[in-house]
Amino acid sequence: MQWISNYSIIAAPPTRPEDTMPKKNAFYAQSGGVTAVINASACGVIETARQHKSKIGKIYAGRNGIIGALREDLIDTGKESAKAIAGLKSTPAGAFGSCRYKLKSLEENRAEYERLIDVFRAHDIGYFFYNGGGDSADTCLKVSQLSERMGYPIQAIHIPKTVDNDLPFTDNCPGFGSVAKYVAVSTREASLDVASMCETSTKVFILEVMGRHAGWIAAAGGLAAEHEGDPPHIILFPEIAFSEEKFLKKVESTVKRNGYCVIVASEGAQYKDGTLVAASSHTDAFGHKQLGGVAPTLAALVKSKLGYKYHWALADYLQRSARHIASATDVEQAYAVGKAAVEYALAGKNALMVTIERNEGKRYGWSLGAAPLDKVANVEKKMPRDFISRDGFGITDKAHHYLTPLIKGESYPEYKDGVPIYTRLKLVSVAKKLKGTFDV
Amino acid sequence: MQWISNYSIIAAPPTRPEDTMPKKNAFYAQSGGVTAVINASACGVIETARQHKSKIGKIYAGRNGIIGALREDLIDTGKESAKAIAGLKSTPAGAFGSCRYKLKSLEENRAEYERLIDVFRAHDIGYFFYNGGGDSADTCLKVSQLSERMGYPIQAIHIPKTVDNDLPFTDNCPGFGSVAKYVAVSTREASLDVASMCETSTKVFILEVMGRHAGWIAAAGGLAAEHEGDPPHIILFPEIAFSEEKFLKKVESTVKRNGYCVIVASEGAQYKDGTLVAASSHTDAFGHKQLGGVAPTLAALVKSKLGYKYHWALADYLQRSARHIASATDVEQAYAVGKAAVEYALAGKNALMVTIERNEGKRYGWSLGAAPLDKVANVEKKMPRDFISRDGFGITDKAHHYLTPLIKGESYPEYKDGVPIYTRLKLVSVAKKLKGTFDV
Repeated sequence: MQWISNYSIIAAPPTRPEDTMPKKNAFYAQSGGVTAVINASACGVIETARQHKSKIGKIYAGRNGIIGALREDLIDTGKESAKAIAGLKSTPAGAFGSCRYKLKSLEENRAEYERLIDVFRAHDIGYFFYNGGGDSADTCLKVSQLSERMGYPIQAIHIPKTVDNDLPFTDNCPGFGSVAKYVAVSTREASLDVASMCETSTKVFILEVMGRHAGWIAAAGGLAAEHEGDPPHIILFPEIAFSEEKFLKKVESTVKRNGYCVIVASEGAQYKDGTLVAASSHTDAFGHKQLGGVAPTLAALVKSKLGYKYHWALADYLQRSARHIASATDVEQAYAVGKAAVEYALAGKNALMVTIERNEGKRYGWSLGAAPLDKVANVEKKMPRDFISRDGFGITDKAHHYLTPLIKGESYPEYKDGVPIYTRLKLVSVAKKLKGTFDV
Repeated sequence: MQWISNYSIIAAPPTRPEDTMPKKNAFYAQSGGVTAVINASACGVIETARQHKSKIGKIYAGRNGIIGALREDLIDTGKESAKAIAGLKSTPAGAFGSCRYKLKSLEENRAEYERLIDVFRAHDIGYFFYNGGGDSADTCLKVSQLSERMGYPIQAIHIPKTVDNDLPFTDNCPGFGSVAKYVAVSTREASLDVASMCETSTKVFILEVMGRHAGWIAAAGGLAAEHEGDPPHIILFPEIAFSEEKFLKKVESTVKRNGYCVIVASEGAQYKDGTLVAASSHTDAFGHKQLGGVAPTLAALVKSKLGYKYHWALADYLQRSARHIASATDVEQAYAVGKAAVEYALAGKNALMVTIERNEGKRYGWSLGAAPLDKVANVEKKMPRDFISRDGFGITDKAHHYLTPLIKGESYPEYKDGVPIYTRLKLVSVAKKLKGTFDV
């Protein structure tokens, strides 16, 4: 682990040497949509913190994320065996519970932040490890800022996690590599299926994938292709304005040439004016639209305009929980960022996000760095244009080069009776110390 | 391999001793929806036939299934290396192409059958290995019958294949175990995801699975549960009449008790009067309705009546092509039925389907047998009522006992750059011998 970065804007935050630090408890929480490897980060945090008993006392986790802190509903991870904690490395989803709960701005709801500080103070918590995406980076930053002003300093370290791969300043985000692998593998497999049957059956197959406003996950479908012209024949990115005409033309020419056409469509695919190709009317707690429905919309379009028989798949949660096909690189990095978060905290760092940095050189290698939270919060990193082919329907060699190492390696869980053994924690509650309740 | 069966109706067909048999070529074709392991059966056929060069000459495959025979579009498998053929064992989908093409009855289209015999005669084919489900068993039988009447005897052996697990006289069908494993694993993983987030997000998750009119694949979702009360909380079988009222009551009580509810719904789920819970208007070449759409229908029902936030997944082709998570038992059996088909043919058998038979005793074991095709064709084996729990929403211990061994063992393909290495064949065409063409 190095305190280095390719990003010039990164400045070292104030540092407090480890030997002058009083022993404090730690708080860890999972935030937002879970992944196949967020528990590997939890494992990295807890195993590392357990090795520093002179500096870190209890390690608490928020039940269901930050609302566990607001409700003073803490889990004592000390009650979990070393074996159970180790098992987190191969267990998908959020073992402590996660939540979609965005704290309002300080101006709008200062009481929530003050409540957090109160809970941290009551439980002598000096380290706040927050494992999430862009929104939680923002929360993490605010906690750090307010705690200082309230005279109870908290070292807040953000541990990156998002399948959408859209956090800035990090080469990639833990959670993404495993979804990317799932999408690449599934696309290769389903394409073989369609190719087998296209003479008399399905001509067009559409796989709808996650990724919100960034096309990273859809791009990973491109890794299914081994040779030029292999499926997927069309990838729809949110970054490229969707044109019905161009799309239908490409579908038709592909079917005419190959007998079938495989499409990987991002849920965030949109028209030039920003209208989603298909958007449901739901909006989540962060104010984001709940996406989904691109595949059936495209299928209907293909059927009505070209008359081809179609099939489509919507993997939904299957893709982000598929620990059975997780990327070994992703698992390793997810663990490492959790470990590094603790090490940064012990080195006196504050208000930063751990980052993954790609080494220079032809062979893939990575190290860890950090970025200040005030630069990270609420920035979305989309696919660069030169990762997308000129016609907007595929990925370039540059994208291939970037993506391939992230899905490399298989990290299989153990199995019993044909299904993976996933860890169940005891999740023992910590006795409350504050009077009254706090509604969230 | 034994010529035995638990089914008393099975009678040995006429037998011709191997040493009196002239050397003949063989024809192999894949039929209907492909699976993660149908190529393992192809591998079993070809590798075994290659060991009997004194009896079996060329081994041809139909390009895109039986229509390859009708069009005299044959593939010479002799042009494929031993390594390529071995690679079929870990390659999903139909390497020679499959089709949805049901031959009409002899009365309706005798020309098609005569054409088949003509092609077989022209290429000196004496063995017909047909790898498919119930419809292809019927075709296989007719070819055998007509060939005899036309004075060009063909030994027709049916190699069972269907993810729907609905063939009679065999304990299970190759292809099913791997889908079952995919569904069990995916249900376990997605359930952890939903459980992590349910406090503030999705309360109801629905996974729609294949299976047509039989609930076997949906039942496999039940293997995700380790303990009583574990997800999935509801399984919807085609065999149990769907009642909106009972369903909604169960969803509501489950959410109230657990905070969330996971549902595995068969595409064939139907009301008491036989109306599908959701049916598209498409009909395939076999006259079967193209199913799909149960999940969004149920989701809309849950939302409108109970107001819960939902998510749903439709794995579609992903489930049946998921060689990356194939059941080792399934792979082994798929290979074995292909091998046995050749051995039965060499033993002079005709007009039969290879069956898998479960050994008596507590520990799972299996052997091979056979059933006469005239009993097999067009019979659907549904889930027995005592495999389904009393309330109709789960599986019993008996079902668990039946299903578990079928998904046991992992049979991982090799990987390169993060994606599985799947075999590509050369698919070299055999020169045509007949004049004129035949339209299909």
